[in-house]
This record gives sequence, structure tokens and C-alpha cells, in this order.
Amino acid sequence: MSFSKKVTIAQLASEANVSVATVSRIINKNGYVKPETREKVIKAMEKLDYQPYVKKFEDNSLRSKSLLICFPDFRNPFYGEIIEGIQATAFSRGYLPFDFQASNPRNALKEYEFIMKENNFCGLLLAHNVSNTELLSQLRLRYPIVMCSEHCNQPNISFVSIDNTYAVQTAINYLLSIGRTKISFINSLLTNNYSRLREKGFHDAMTHAGLSIPADWITHISDINFEMAVSAVTRILSGENHPDAFFCVSDVYAAAAIKAIQNVGLRVPQDISVVGFDNIDLSRMTVPSITTIKQPSFDIGQQACNLLINLIENPSAPAEHILLNTELIVRDSTSARINSKNN
Amino acid sequence: MSFSKKVTIAQLASEANVSVATVSRIINKNGYVKPETREKVIKAMEKLDYQPYVKKFEDNSLRSKSLLICFPDFRNPFYGEIIEGIQATAFSRGYLPFDFQASNPRNALKEYEFIMKENNFCGLLLAHNVSNTELLSQLRLRYPIVMCSEHCNQPNISFVSIDNTYAVQTAINYLLSIGRTKISFINSLLTNNYSRLREKGFHDAMTHAGLSIPADWITHISDINFEMAVSAVTRILSGENHPDAFFCVSDVYAAAAIKAIQNVGLRVPQDISVVGFDNIDLSRMTVPSITTIKQPSFDIGQQACNLLINLIENPSAPAEHILLNTELIVRDSTSARINSKNN
Repeated sequence: MSFSKKVTIAQLASEANVSVATVSRIINKNGYVKPETREKVIKAMEKLDYQPYVKKFEDNSLRSKSLLICFPDFRNPFYGEIIEGIQATAFSRGYLPFDFQASNPRNALKEYEFIMKENNFCGLLLAHNVSNTELLSQLRLRYPIVMCSEHCNQPNISFVSIDNTYAVQTAINYLLSIGRTKISFINSLLTNNYSRLREKGFHDAMTHAGLSIPADWITHISDINFEMAVSAVTRILSGENHPDAFFCVSDVYAAAAIKAIQNVGLRVPQDISVVGFDNIDLSRMTVPSITTIKQPSFDIGQQACNLLINLIENPSAPAEHILLNTELIVRDSTSARINSKNN
Repeated sequence: MSFSKKVTIAQLASEANVSVATVSRIINKNGYVKPETREKVIKAMEKLDYQPYVKKFEDNSLRSKSLLICFPDFRNPFYGEIIEGIQATAFSRGYLPFDFQASNPRNALKEYEFIMKENNFCGLLLAHNVSNTELLSQLRLRYPIVMCSEHCNQPNISFVSIDNTYAVQTAINYLLSIGRTKISFINSLLTNNYSRLREKGFHDAMTHAGLSIPADWITHISDINFEMAVSAVTRILSGENHPDAFFCVSDVYAAAAIKAIQNVGLRVPQDISVVGFDNIDLSRMTVPSITTIKQPSFDIGQQACNLLINLIENPSAPAEHILLNTELIVRDSTSARINSKNN
């Protein structure tokens, strides 16, 4: 078996008649490239049979170079870009990433333990919440384990994530700056670490601004599920007094808020502004497009996979806890209030 | 290691105070259930520690019971529900499904060959287009292989898919029935089998109705990519004469069409109606929601995985070619023309 010769980025750039930087942006999925330009580069890739990653498939030790990558839910579009980042790192370092979802989330660690023991996986990348941190620490004594995006505070477990609390404070402060003070908070269940950290960010920012809101304007949804979120937002809108903004911990919830608000005949962003979280593709697809917190999802996957492979190749590598920067992206779902703040 | 006792659907129904049929609908993701009801059932599942699938993790032969499930792109939301169907079957029959995306789509079969040979996988489920059907047939002589959703016409390779041509004819005939005759067709590249079959359905229906359209109203996009589709639709709308409907082979393209149409100040569905394909979650999230062809994605995954396991357990099982029914779901992105057909 042979894989064909390596095509360089410079060759691609020349074939597509674009700059090396443009090709690099496309390969690393880093920064905006016009669709027409992207098409040209993709055509050049096809013509030259470009292979995005250095292949090491000839390496006989590959059978012990498989990574087990564990997700909570393949239907949540948030994970697509993280998977791309993991893949980019794994392939370029000669590892094979296999994605898996436990059959029972409540016993997930036991399933992974069984799989690691019975198969050839040499490392475990967890992209979901773990409640049994004691069992996780025990597993870590036997296997290289890194957490990705969602994480827990075990000192011996490396993770790559974001500063959830700070990210939410930034978003709430932005809403306050455009005169939105009656803010409803659409959260996931507090069993998730990220949900607790984001709720803290919400409370911190509101308290700092001297604002309070009705208790039932904070709601917790058990799943990243559009219909459940539409119901929750509709219920909040049915009260006598309604919020002038929704802050949602997922773009899926934000799309649901937009739908629910328009369903009751109100306008987004004029009557009620909406902010989401993640910057998944969906945030650009809705009308209005969604103001959101951009997670560096591709980088999170890439760096987490790097930490895992470092740990496999150097078992005494110290644990690292990395928080990457987020960014508020303002789109069409938010605008300043026209009336006074206290309306 | 122990997995806890099996909880029955009847116990769940009793705990949640709903019918057994409702619990079954939730577990099999088959049919609509009100979000509040769903929440009640999920709470009951958590309380009783319900395990959705029969576990066979104690089985020592599990190390040879891993399935390699290959997707072209984890960012295309179409695959989430197919993965759920595959998982449901795999777990219930005592197999472990591992999802994988080749590092180079043009050499994907060679990567799978290498992985199958070097690892413990006992079967291969392909959910993407294969151009090298000769190599596929050779691989099939050595490994159990089934195709899922996308497929090629190799007599010795089982697949589960839909009747793409018929599905598109149905959608076009529906558009014609509501007076939409100037139909633009937004397709993927014709290297995909499904794209060729759907384009045939489009031509058949238009020819049967005695209609023709400008050649540049049929467009082929190289990826399931929102921005590329917005560009393509915008270009079509920039012509002097514009379509009164778009038929799109993906709901992602349909969301892009809605965005592009609204960007130029036209209304969906009144001025231009839009039909998508797949019935992914996105089709309910946009405003207006998207009229679409529902693929039985969960069933496709479930049945394809069943065929694969049958083949593993009985290597002489004959190849089966299964086409499941699709359904046109009319939502808010389509409406009858108010003026005459020939306007």
C-alpha cells in the first residue's frame, strides 16, 4: 500500500492562483475566506491530490496508536469543529482518532475503562462532563487522559477549555452597554461544569451592575434541544412583564429564543435582543443572524489532542490546564434599546 | 465491573406517568412528543438509572466486536441522527461503534483497509460516496462491508438508502401543484451518487410537466457549506429573471437560499418558495421553517447496522439493497403563487 507524494501549500497556492496565507487559512480553518476563493483552492487540492496531513500509515506501530475520543452527543453541532481540530492534530502526529459515544452517559467511564482494557487504544480524550471525578482520577493512573471543552477540576487531569465565567460577563456587559437590563438567562443543567461557571458569570455581572431579575427568568434545560428551549422561552414570554434580552448558553437555544419571540409577535432585536454561545454554523444561518460568544473550537480540539499525545509519548509530562480566549461576535440579533433603560 | 439492572419501558412509563407508547416514541426517536412530556420521561430515566440498550460489555469476545463507521464530514448535521440509529442497533446487539473520518477522502478506502488489517474491527459501515468501486469490491471479499445512505451500485455490497429520484420528483410535483414553475435546483457535485439521482428526479419531473429552465439555474456546490450556497443563490438571483422556487438537496442549502432571498429584499415563501432535503433539526429552526423531504435517518442507520452485523455473524448472507420511504413535510417556506403561473 502506498500513499501518494506530499503536495506543498506553495504548490496549491500557485495552482489556485492565490496566496500561501489564503491556502493556510483554508487548511487551518482559521479566518474568513471568500467562497469563490475557497472553491478555487479546493479544486486545486483535488487536481493535485493534496493530502492535508502528513501520513504515517506505513508505521508498523500504528496498531498501538489509536485514540479514543468521547463525545456526549453527535447531534449537538458544537462538536463538529472540535472533531476537525482533534483530527488535524492526530493525523499530523501519526495517530488515528476514533469517535465514540457511551451507550449510557451515567456509566460512561466504566464503558471507556472496558474499551481501553480490551482494545488497542493508547489514550482517552473526554469531551463531556464527568461527575464521578474519583473514578476518573483512578483511570488516569492507568491511562493517558485529557479533557476537552468540558472539564472538571482534578489537578492531575489536563484540559483545554475557555474561561466560561469571563465569557458570560463580557456578553452581559455588552447587553448592559446597549441598554438591555431585563436579561433572561437560558442555561443547561447545573450538573454541567460549564453551566455552573456561566451562571456565575451571569450573576457576577448583574450583581456588579446592581440589577436583579425575577427568579423564573433563569431556566435550565436538560438537553441541547431546540424544541425544549422554544417551550422554555415561550413560558418566560407569557409573563406580564417580559425580558428585553435573552442570554443563551448555546446558539441552538438562541435560535429557539428568536423563534419563540417572533411567534408571539415581537421583534428581534428591537423588542428583545438575543445572544448565543459557541459561534456554530447555525449562528450565521438564522434571520437575524445571532450575536454570540465565539469559542475557538478548532483550536480547543487541536490543543487538547496535542496534550494527549504529549502525555502518551512522555508519561511524566505534568498536567496542564489551558484556557483559550473567546470573542464576542456582534451580529443582527442584538441592538440598542430605543426607549429609556427603565421602560 | 458491573452494569446495573435493566429498567423496563413499563417502569419508566409508570414513573413518568405517561403511556408506554410515549416512552417508546422517545427512546426510538420516532414521532413527536411534547417537550414537557419528554422532560418528565428523561427525569424518570435519570431517577431509575435507565440504560437505553441491552449491555453485553461483560462478554469477553467484545474485543473482536468493534465496528468501524466511516463518515465524510462530522460538521454536516445530517449525520447526527444516522449515528444515533447505528448506535442503537450496535449496542443492542453487543457491538461497539467507532466513528471515523479518513484523513484524505480520495484515499479513504486505503486508510480503512490499513485500519481493518491492523486493528480489531470486524465490520465496516460506509456512509459516504465511493468512486473506486473496484477497490471496494476487492475489500468486500475480505471484510464485511455495508453502505449507508450514500451507496454505489455494486451487486455484492448491501446498502440502506432512499429512492432519491422519486423523492425529488415528489417535491417538484408539489411545487408545480402550488403554481411554482420557475424552479432553480441547488445540488451538490455530481461525483456523489445521490446528487446524480436527485438531478435525474428534477429533470424527469420538469420534462414530464413540459417545463424548461435556464441552464444556470442548476448549480453544483462542492461541499455542504452555508456560505458557498448563499453565494450560489445570490448569483442566480442577480439575473434579470429570477426563479419563483428553489429546490435544494440539503436543508443547509435551503437555509442559505432563505438568507440570500431575504438579503435581496424578496419574501419567502410569497415571492420565492424554498424546499430543502433531509429534515435535519435546522429545518425547524429557521424563520420561516423549511418545507423538506424527511429522510428516515435514524432507521437508515439502524437497518444498515443490522445488515452489517448479520453479515458478520453469517458471512454467507446475501447482499440486500433496501430503499426506505421518504416523506414531504410542508412547513412555512412554501406557499402557492398568488399571480398566474406564467407571471
